[in-house]
Amino acid sequence: MNKDNITIVKTTNGKAKPSENALGFGKYFTDHMFVLDYDIDNGWHSPRVVPYEPITLDPAAMVFHYGQTVFEGLKAYYGTNGKTMLFRPEKNVERLNRSCNRLSIPEIDEELFLKGLKTLIAVEKEWIPKEDGTSLYIRPFILPTETNLRVAPANSYKFIIILSPVGAYYAEGIHPVAINVEKEYTRAVLGGTGTAKTAGNYCAGYKAQKKASEQGAAQVLWLDGVEKKYIEEVGSMNIFFKINGEVVTPELNGSILEGITRMSIIELLKKWGIPVTEKKISFEEFVQAYEDGIVEEVFGTGTAAVISPVGEFRFQDKIMIINNRETGELSKKLYDTITGIQTGKMEDELNWTIEV
Amino acid sequence: MNKDNITIVKTTNGKAKPSENALGFGKYFTDHMFVLDYDIDNGWHSPRVVPYEPITLDPAAMVFHYGQTVFEGLKAYYGTNGKTMLFRPEKNVERLNRSCNRLSIPEIDEELFLKGLKTLIAVEKEWIPKEDGTSLYIRPFILPTETNLRVAPANSYKFIIILSPVGAYYAEGIHPVAINVEKEYTRAVLGGTGTAKTAGNYCAGYKAQKKASEQGAAQVLWLDGVEKKYIEEVGSMNIFFKINGEVVTPELNGSILEGITRMSIIELLKKWGIPVTEKKISFEEFVQAYEDGIVEEVFGTGTAAVISPVGEFRFQDKIMIINNRETGELSKKLYDTITGIQTGKMEDELNWTIEV
Ligand SMILES: Cc1ncc(COP(=O)(O)O)c(C=O)c1O
Ligand SMILES: Cc1ncc(COP(=O)(O)O)c(C=O)c1O
Repeated sequence: MNKDNITIVKTTNGKAKPSENALGFGKYFTDHMFVLDYDIDNGWHSPRVVPYEPITLDPAAMVFHYGQTVFEGLKAYYGTNGKTMLFRPEKNVERLNRSCNRLSIPEIDEELFLKGLKTLIAVEKEWIPKEDGTSLYIRPFILPTETNLRVAPANSYKFIIILSPVGAYYAEGIHPVAINVEKEYTRAVLGGTGTAKTAGNYCAGYKAQKKASEQGAAQVLWLDGVEKKYIEEVGSMNIFFKINGEVVTPELNGSILEGITRMSIIELLKKWGIPVTEKKISFEEFVQAYEDGIVEEVFGTGTAAVISPVGEFRFQDKIMIINNRETGELSKKLYDTITGIQTGKMEDELNWTIEV
Repeated sequence: MNKDNITIVKTTNGKAKPSENALGFGKYFTDHMFVLDYDIDNGWHSPRVVPYEPITLDPAAMVFHYGQTVFEGLKAYYGTNGKTMLFRPEKNVERLNRSCNRLSIPEIDEELFLKGLKTLIAVEKEWIPKEDGTSLYIRPFILPTETNLRVAPANSYKFIIILSPVGAYYAEGIHPVAINVEKEYTRAVLGGTGTAKTAGNYCAGYKAQKKASEQGAAQVLWLDGVEKKYIEEVGSMNIFFKINGEVVTPELNGSILEGITRMSIIELLKKWGIPVTEKKISFEEFVQAYEDGIVEEVFGTGTAAVISPVGEFRFQDKIMIINNRETGELSKKLYDTITGIQTGKMEDELNWTIEV
């Protein structure tokens, strides 16, 4: 049984590459994918790069019924001097395995994941877009393939990495958005699956997202599922506040997803000597600070946008405008620094990037 | 566009039917399935019965990533005089549509669903097992088929009904099981997806189920996600208590799944003149009643087992034995009545069954 020797089968039928100005997000996929299979007898095995192709499953395959899936999201960048760069991919591997643990999915060898990812990226090098702000989005995911309707962990899985060239998140430069404060719907709760990147957490937010859109907001501010009191995340991002010169972000409380951008920002702020605290932040406490006029900046953080400044919060009839709906100085500096490091334009003093 | 005329394509390649003594649950599937497609322009369309066959999807199909699925579970019975009987299928259709609503999936025409189901069952009549306690399990489900990684409701779906001949839940007659009281993991929370039959709710329970099994228990007792105080469900079943001559069951609080067996039991008890109340039931309150010696019976209810008596609860180091680990009188009577009505052995005074 082949456990770590990655075989490569190249397509004879490459697709035309889409224009770099109209990539959008997650619409186009490259010519190959990385695949690993799992069964009880052999564990994870048969690592391979193969032509991008459909998945064929029995209608009773567990993935259609009980949602036992996990995924990751990271990017490869076309760096200075044509280098191919990855940003802290080992953190995604670690998080994938934490997600696996929560979903009772067998964990993946971290070395093999990274080796598979690098091999795939090397094969697809030409697919990495070069325009400013564009990148190659990487989507590793695991699905249960066993055909059986019993409600229990599957005995067989597939791990797949697919790649999608994506456009700049900010077509016209970074800009602040409106956020709807959600009191009715819940994204995640202590004891649930909120700390894992698993499918069910995302569809659970669609109704709230629709409500936000109908109210002219771009995203949802999620409060904790227990008391609907503490701030957790914004859309599919973590959230930071700069209040009275200090930066605060909700602590990892057992229902928040541990973002890699979040982690990196905390490390950067510490390096810069800017006070940063992870703690419980109640929405009321924020409103009080807002009324006291000491809220300086608010921003979401995640792989897609890196930094997404909040221009206003909408809560019931109230609109709270942040920093005059402008991108704050710290938001801008964090954005420039992280994207600079990711693309090799800035020095990587913290050793975050790796070259493929 | 064909919207309600069901076409039928029969297989030329029927499978051998499994032995009725070794069916188990959800392992064997019949020769055909019912399919409906959805797209934005045409709505739900092309209803058809076709040979049971695999589903082929792009690796970026939304079902693998964001879990926007719903499903149902009901049974067809081989009734007296060889009649094919369904138990309140319209309730499953209504619940599927409530689940769709929560998951932002377009609802299905109830008539068409029932017509499709009946057509499929008629084609597969020979697959309904005849042995006592066996039945044909029916699994309708919806999956998003669009290829796109944006986090938003899909623009295309498939609705599929598959059928699985299943064995008697109780091979050696109805018997009570041990239940582990779960304080760490959460199944569902107010504002979440607990009231919907959606994939993510089920995998979320695997870790707790494993804990229960390791402690020698058969199922998990789920408490509410907010205070971990109120009793919600047991495994994938609703729960009833007979305390001091009265029956109580947790009220539909926005995180419990509304079981059709639960609904039927409440109606039966009312008909029988047995007091039954839907209310908040705290675990502590139950423990107090237990210590007072007034807990008479406890049982789970659901399509699979109909009635699953609880023989004991395990909580930390404590074991609470219910009714001497025997099946209570009321549990037995409810089981006999409902299974009797389902198979046509008893008179269906409440008009619950329909004949196909
Ligand atoms: C729910 C949720 N929160 C936060 C994040 C941000 O995480 P990261 O910075 O690793 O992209 C993501 C995206 O991965 C997410 O899905
Ligand atoms: C979570 C959950 N609770 C309760 C039930 C019982 O519902 P029903 O009686 O309709 O089978 C089910 C099964 O459908 C379920 O999945």
